[in-house]
Amino acid sequence: MPQQHRAQLTRHSILVAAAAEIDQVGYEAARLSAILRRCKTTKGAFYFHFSGKQDVAQVLVEHYRERLSELSDQWYQRAQDPLATMVGLTCDTARHLEEDVQLRAGLLLACNHVGTDTDGWEFLFDDLIRRAADRGLLRPGVDPAAMARLCYAVVVGTNLLVSGDPRRLAARLEESWRVLLPGLVADGDRMTAAAG
Amino acid sequence: MPQQHRAQLTRHSILVAAAAEIDQVGYEAARLSAILRRCKTTKGAFYFHFSGKQDVAQVLVEHYRERLSELSDQWYQRAQDPLATMVGLTCDTARHLEEDVQLRAGLLLACNHVGTDTDGWEFLFDDLIRRAADRGLLRPGVDPAAMARLCYAVVVGTNLLVSGDPRRLAARLEESWRVLLPGLVADGDRMTAAAG
Repeated sequence: MPQQHRAQLTRHSILVAAAAEIDQVGYEAARLSAILRRCKTTKGAFYFHFSGKQDVAQVLVEHYRERLSELSDQWYQRAQDPLATMVGLTCDTARHLEEDVQLRAGLLLACNHVGTDTDGWEFLFDDLIRRAADRGLLRPGVDPAAMARLCYAVVVGTNLLVSGDPRRLAARLEESWRVLLPGLVADGDRMTAAAG
Repeated sequence: MPQQHRAQLTRHSILVAAAAEIDQVGYEAARLSAILRRCKTTKGAFYFHFSGKQDVAQVLVEHYRERLSELSDQWYQRAQDPLATMVGLTCDTARHLEEDVQLRAGLLLACNHVGTDTDGWEFLFDDLIRRAADRGLLRPGVDPAAMARLCYAVVVGTNLLVSGDPRRLAARLEESWRVLLPGLVADGDRMTAAAG
């Protein structure tokens, strides 16, 4: 195995181990020794790739932001209506969070403002709900900025409430949108009748 | 000052200091030395009243649960409709959280499952939304259990999103209910028209 490839594998295994440790015990409580035990790596190898725990955390946050950016680009490009994009993007991200411990740790770190001011979602909700308002999709009287803040709170709250079990996030988010959206969209009565 | 009264004051000042420290840095990071510095109390006096940090935390959670129970009794006894009770109780509790650091710390600890399985709200939302459904107050097609989970997520998410500034919680909750409820209640169109 060429040395550069082996180095890349080591770097990757450190990131996965750090993510798993942070996902399990949180950033503050995550010990370097525990991370090294998880990936069976020496301190020397760790410091070859990273300057410390903070450095690994920064990389995990960057990965998370890149991944979120990719996912949102994909969903925006599907050219559905903005509310369908919001539902699709949030539920799809939830399913990726279930499977990807690096993504989960990155979101957790972003929420704790490690190397970032935001988890990236506030802008997305604001943008998507404003687009929905511009297209006349919202029920008359609904304030788009307030609805965006509400949707953000729903996702953050749902994520917190299922935090013991990330596999429940996608299902709970789908349920939340199914309850919330019919009352906020212009054709809500039709949607409610269809759901009822 | 009688000795018993002085002892009560010391106990109270330890609780307030512990609450302030936990509110600021979290339970895990709260150091006994920092708590003692805040209330200018000796280790000996502390251990006269409490067996350790965990013990103080338990008392703060008990206070929180008693206070929440008092507040919910008050709001239930006003005999408003259950949705008005939900709005009143959540916003009133938010205002109390703004002012009362012991209550804030107690909620934080309850959310972290210190000495309790729950923060007490899941049951309240479930009960109030079921009562609203029984009275025919919900829009046809709305599942009461799912709506209760959504309302719980809204409150938890809103609380998390304003966590840097508890003074914003009551205002943000009022806004959330104003956006959310017209779409979920039977006379929502009237409410929306009045709000618009």
